[in-house]
Amino acid sequence: MLFNQQFLFTPGPTPIPDRVKLAMNEPMIAHRSKAFSHLLEDVSTRLQPIFGARNPVLLVAGTGTSTLETAACNVVEDGDHVVVVVTGAFGDRFANICQAFGANVHRLNIEWGKACEPGQLEEFLKSLDVRVKAIFATYCETSTGVLNPIKELGRITKQHTDALFIVDGVSCIGAVPVAMEEWKIDILVSGSQKALMLPPGLAFIALNENAREVINNCKTKRFYFDVNRYLTSYYEETSTPFTPAVSLIAGAREVCSLIEEEGWENVIARHQLLKEMLRRGLEEIEIPLFVEDDIASPTVTSIQPKEELIGTIKQGLQEKFGIIIAGGQKHLKGKILRIGHMGYCTPYDVLKVLTGIEMIQSNVLDRNIYGKAIAKAEEVWGKNV
Amino acid sequence: MLFNQQFLFTPGPTPIPDRVKLAMNEPMIAHRSKAFSHLLEDVSTRLQPIFGARNPVLLVAGTGTSTLETAACNVVEDGDHVVVVVTGAFGDRFANICQAFGANVHRLNIEWGKACEPGQLEEFLKSLDVRVKAIFATYCETSTGVLNPIKELGRITKQHTDALFIVDGVSCIGAVPVAMEEWKIDILVSGSQKALMLPPGLAFIALNENAREVINNCKTKRFYFDVNRYLTSYYEETSTPFTPAVSLIAGAREVCSLIEEEGWENVIARHQLLKEMLRRGLEEIEIPLFVEDDIASPTVTSIQPKEELIGTIKQGLQEKFGIIIAGGQKHLKGKILRIGHMGYCTPYDVLKVLTGIEMIQSNVLDRNIYGKAIAKAEEVWGKNV
Repeated sequence: MLFNQQFLFTPGPTPIPDRVKLAMNEPMIAHRSKAFSHLLEDVSTRLQPIFGARNPVLLVAGTGTSTLETAACNVVEDGDHVVVVVTGAFGDRFANICQAFGANVHRLNIEWGKACEPGQLEEFLKSLDVRVKAIFATYCETSTGVLNPIKELGRITKQHTDALFIVDGVSCIGAVPVAMEEWKIDILVSGSQKALMLPPGLAFIALNENAREVINNCKTKRFYFDVNRYLTSYYEETSTPFTPAVSLIAGAREVCSLIEEEGWENVIARHQLLKEMLRRGLEEIEIPLFVEDDIASPTVTSIQPKEELIGTIKQGLQEKFGIIIAGGQKHLKGKILRIGHMGYCTPYDVLKVLTGIEMIQSNVLDRNIYGKAIAKAEEVWGKNV
Repeated sequence: MLFNQQFLFTPGPTPIPDRVKLAMNEPMIAHRSKAFSHLLEDVSTRLQPIFGARNPVLLVAGTGTSTLETAACNVVEDGDHVVVVVTGAFGDRFANICQAFGANVHRLNIEWGKACEPGQLEEFLKSLDVRVKAIFATYCETSTGVLNPIKELGRITKQHTDALFIVDGVSCIGAVPVAMEEWKIDILVSGSQKALMLPPGLAFIALNENAREVINNCKTKRFYFDVNRYLTSYYEETSTPFTPAVSLIAGAREVCSLIEEEGWENVIARHQLLKEMLRRGLEEIEIPLFVEDDIASPTVTSIQPKEELIGTIKQGLQEKFGIIIAGGQKHLKGKILRIGHMGYCTPYDVLKVLTGIEMIQSNVLDRNIYGKAIAKAEEVWGKNV
């Protein structure tokens, strides 16, 4: 390779904007200070539109799984019945966490690569003759690139149960629309290292009054992830119960500015464009897409080339073209490849990854397809300028 | 104030060296990659001398309290008897965490500002007629600035019980000597934002074979903080079970370099010097020290001016001299002030804080003591050049 730069296209962690790095590099401040309280309040409230939340978003120092655990261990008690919609590895993790905290987990297993259809959840709920305390779902299933129809699943949840509806938004919040109240989401969690353009280490929890009541009554043993402590600390002192991840929160403030300057609607539209450009470009060079268009996430795209080409493409992209993408997880290991395109990502980045792929394909297939995917992607972009 | 800079002297978070910031700003890397495995192994092993550990140090994304919880929830089961040596707010927190996880907590309460003497622990253990599963102690009690005699407490622990000896090293590891095996420490935890010169958000866990066995058998419900998962992931894949705090770990590598370049013994000696300079300087201007010399931590110094001066000094330092120190916690609020001097801190920084204090004192007492504390501190430094 004639250059030494690498370009990160994994579905998290994602690249960090320079402005965010600079914000994180501001001199450290004391966390029990007015300056920090202002910072915390600023970030917690400016994140509200991004989370479609009516209340300030709580911040916990931890990575993605910590936010799933926070959502689970504040609700689930020993022996409770919960439903987890499992559409991939992260739905599976949600289920495992609930299980670790003693829940009777009813897994609604969906074939990986498909979304959970509202009717499937409806039927599943009808088949259960227990009181379900919570229904857990994954908005974007990072392991497949599927975007589940959360709004519809929320409707079904509330139509058939009085359960809390709890959503993992880790790999899409900051890139996709969401409206907690309208969509009947009681708890929405996310992490910093995906569409929110930060390094891993900051977890976000948005919740409504229903959730607060359940959390307040939940007896499960917990301390660091006890949401009651975060609520008390936020509402009584505009603070955090434990030392917060100060520099990441300073970075989050800059992320809010970046999103506000671009315009939240534009951020959503940009991610749609990135998805369209990438998918149409990949189709053009006959790379099979793993997920159908209408349920494909605007943040991560899975492709399913012939199995014997999987390694060639992934390693070739890295070694010859400086492009880092991710493989499949669990039973999809060696079967699919995943390309992240969220957060600090422009149409040029999509063109970059398409360039790498079509050049690899030209080499491997010994067939001149130079520029073919790019032309198609530019055509898509052209309609959206 | 004729300048707008602020100087952070809280006992954590502490200032971040530019080299560490630059390291954290390196382009984000994928966490399931060889590059990350190399980074993780490099940091985990290079931290060993700093933790006096025979095994690589495990890394968890979370702040100080998360590391205390990790130490507790992997060991303590419902109904277990544990002893917590409480010498201040963080011993108290350790006890609260153990309680939250269902332990019968036997608190050995020591007057705040004093260390736990070995004889006190010995007597306390003799008075208990239950099997104690673990004894928790705080190396440096951040809320008072006391350094507990961990080596002696370890000896007593093992002489009288077969309990695990678990130590909170959050506000001193990276500045003080420690030897897990010789001192009989089974689990030693620390955080990133104190002497280790990083922003808050990375937790460190060092443990021995005894601890591994107990942790492996511990049935307490946990997931994100389950040390077994971190052990498996580290030893089988040189990885982490969940997304790690990549940028903080990159920063930690630079911290290891900084400490190695200075020399670990010199780092320890420097902190001793900072303590001596500060304490002798403060004495010189008649600021009462809250903690006796022989148990005072080399990382944080508590002072106990007349109560009516506490606010004047703290606010005056901030508003007129750009120096941020911390107040007392819990019942010591309004009674003491705490000055942090750990990590990225040189003798010049101690002179800076002494300047602020003696100038405030000159103003408040309307007495010319300009340069007095400084002269004494320089004298101390002069003997150590």
